[in-house]
Amino acid sequence: MTTGELTPERIVRLEDDAVVVLDQRRLPGEEVELRLRSAAAVAEAIRALAVRGAPAIGVAAAYGFALAAARGEDLEAAYDALVTARPTAVNLSWALSEMRDDPTPERARAIHEAEVERCRRMGAHAAELIPAAARLLTHCNTGGLATGGFGTALGAVRTAWERGLVERVWVDETRPLLQGARLTAWELDELGIQFSVIVDGAAAALMARGEVDCVLTGADRIAANGDTANKIGTYALAVAAHYHGVPFYVVAPSSTLDDAAASGSEIPIEERDPGEITDAFPARNLAFDVTPGDLIAAIVTEEGVHRPPYASSLPMLARARS
Amino acid sequence: MTTGELTPERIVRLEDDAVVVLDQRRLPGEEVELRLRSAAAVAEAIRALAVRGAPAIGVAAAYGFALAAARGEDLEAAYDALVTARPTAVNLSWALSEMRDDPTPERARAIHEAEVERCRRMGAHAAELIPAAARLLTHCNTGGLATGGFGTALGAVRTAWERGLVERVWVDETRPLLQGARLTAWELDELGIQFSVIVDGAAAALMARGEVDCVLTGADRIAANGDTANKIGTYALAVAAHYHGVPFYVVAPSSTLDDAAASGSEIPIEERDPGEITDAFPARNLAFDVTPGDLIAAIVTEEGVHRPPYASSLPMLARARS
Repeated sequence: MTTGELTPERIVRLEDDAVVVLDQRRLPGEEVELRLRSAAAVAEAIRALAVRGAPAIGVAAAYGFALAAARGEDLEAAYDALVTARPTAVNLSWALSEMRDDPTPERARAIHEAEVERCRRMGAHAAELIPAAARLLTHCNTGGLATGGFGTALGAVRTAWERGLVERVWVDETRPLLQGARLTAWELDELGIQFSVIVDGAAAALMARGEVDCVLTGADRIAANGDTANKIGTYALAVAAHYHGVPFYVVAPSSTLDDAAASGSEIPIEERDPGEITDAFPARNLAFDVTPGDLIAAIVTEEGVHRPPYASSLPMLARARS
Repeated sequence: MTTGELTPERIVRLEDDAVVVLDQRRLPGEEVELRLRSAAAVAEAIRALAVRGAPAIGVAAAYGFALAAARGEDLEAAYDALVTARPTAVNLSWALSEMRDDPTPERARAIHEAEVERCRRMGAHAAELIPAAARLLTHCNTGGLATGGFGTALGAVRTAWERGLVERVWVDETRPLLQGARLTAWELDELGIQFSVIVDGAAAALMARGEVDCVLTGADRIAANGDTANKIGTYALAVAAHYHGVPFYVVAPSSTLDDAAASGSEIPIEERDPGEITDAFPARNLAFDVTPGDLIAAIVTEEGVHRPPYASSLPMLARARS
């Protein structure tokens, strides 16, 4: 089976005078491009979730830094504005530290191309984990929109679909911002992949009915022991999958691995404006949760499939020892 | 501590020419009363979720049947229209079979008063299960709105609050129709009880943080072995509570017990219009799920607290044996 076109340039690119991004807040209703003409404008677009998804944020920030350099902006101020735009995404600081060494458009485009290539490799590794006629369940948006190109967990879905392995994709709507119902659904529709949106609370019930073969999510940050911070609701999925014996896989670039965090308790968790849930009443809006490594069947990076115990299997640690 | 006023008559009552209900679809923004002048109109209000919650549906149907009798409607047609308005709620058929024997306003009002009294007794029984300074988590709406008066699981919260036992109430927003964020939040606000709304996917993460002492939900139907059909997302909560060692309690009137169903697999599960989730993309809208009895720490009815094994502890079976 073939899939439709959703090129990296449609999602984020650098032009002479602006970083151009597809405004993810307007999808699926409208495809609107934002022209961001300074590092501060890029940072604000990241903060306001016009650009979201850990790898896409890193790519947009890299382009924003290159733009700042080309415009002669104060690069320390540009760095500070961009690096603080979102607290959970380690890709952001990784991409910006790369750009500080070489603040050129070429370097930023290389980061983008490498991100897309990494996703394709992740997809190929993860597809090996997916059985025939699979009913896959995914959360939030981890596709081309989230990564600036091909996708992590949704890239794995895409690769598995191209190999004819996928019977159906269950898409958690992912409250409060509905990235699943809006963005993942939009991408799967563009790609011609069969899917159904479900409310987040229905995932466990579908597992109980035997209608889920595996769960695939992305990651915002992965600690050295495999504990994984990701969109709120991920942990609930992992607990439900564990209870039902359904394998739960994390698909993420190795840039998401953070060896400065020994475990999930050292990952800062973003709390966002309660108004995202309700304007009428008090609300608590935890934006992320942490899934313990022992609930994760495998973590897939571009380097391969890593199994527990993660303290020895995650690639950054293997590199650190070599 | 005292709580504000939310009288049974505000929620549903019988007047000479109409059943009058508070339109729950318009809350919390507006308090609008619907005047329903035939059994068919009552059935349509139930189907359209203007009246919802298993006990409230039973009360509204009883009033609808009494109205039909007073108007000289065909009572078999009235029965058929009302009994088929929602498939999951056993209270509906229970209340209507009572009304067939005595189709008078007095009988309908007695059903309503008994429902309120039963809820107060449930609340008193369930409050005994709640520790001091409790952080309670509840799903959907099981309050006065759902029951035509005091509430089942939320009645237990109300009783515990009046006894000074409650530190905080976590309210699952309960997608897709947001009965928690709209109705439970509205009731708790009216009653002056402290609460925060959370997205459904956050409940497990709050349990992992040790911020939930027990979970209280209602039930649409309880099979003889304790398997409990309730709003979609209930099962996910029960699995998460089980994993975290948090007690999960069901609070429901004994009229919810269905000894014709030996287990949850014999309870029909309603699937509703996918448009409730999204109009833009395909969706699967399971409206209810079934929680196995072995994930339920206790089932509380007006007759007391019933512990596993439910096949011998549930009151209907005790009655059947006596």
